[in-house]
Amino acid sequence: MAKTIDSQLQEYRDSIDNINAALIYLLSERFKITKKVGALKAERNYPAADKEREAEQITRLRDLAEAANLDPDFSEKILEFIIAEVIRDHEKIKSGG
Amino acid sequence: MAKTIDSQLQEYRDSIDNINAALIYLLSERFKITKKVGALKAERNYPAADKEREAEQITRLRDLAEAANLDPDFSEKILEFIIAEVIRDHEKIKSGG
Repeated sequence: MAKTIDSQLQEYRDSIDNINAALIYLLSERFKITKKVGALKAERNYPAADKEREAEQITRLRDLAEAANLDPDFSEKILEFIIAEVIRDHEKIKSGG
Repeated sequence: MAKTIDSQLQEYRDSIDNINAALIYLLSERFKITKKVGALKAERNYPAADKEREAEQITRLRDLAEAANLDPDFSEKILEFIIAEVIRDHEKIKSGG
């Protein structure tokens, strides 16, 4: 029996919901680690931002995006958005917040 | 033997790199599905954006973020960023691009 289009749409949306949840949990793990990085940087009095490391991450991410058939510009923007949040976090940790 | 701080930083960065790759591949899967949604919407002449569905996704995502100990505002901003890209994609599909 053929699926109606609306049940097909619902099936897609269920998968999107699952992927959203996976993204959230993965981002949460990422922030757990970057918080540890922030604490380490504060301890050593390293600057919160590290342009060289960021540039490396972006190059690597763009390559991965191409391999995964994802728009590299979009991927870079997402990573920059995440890194900006991480830097705000690191600055908070540094100022003892 | 105690780890030096720099090898500790490297260990954290290796984990961040792995998580970045997982995020990219997961986003790629998500776009595969939203492209199918876009094709379905174009076929049925549904509008590219669906405010009700977006609002549902955001509410669900904020709840998930709280459960995962992630900032709900940050999570919402990331989702909105992804959805904006999806809508651009849907509009391209609709206009036959």
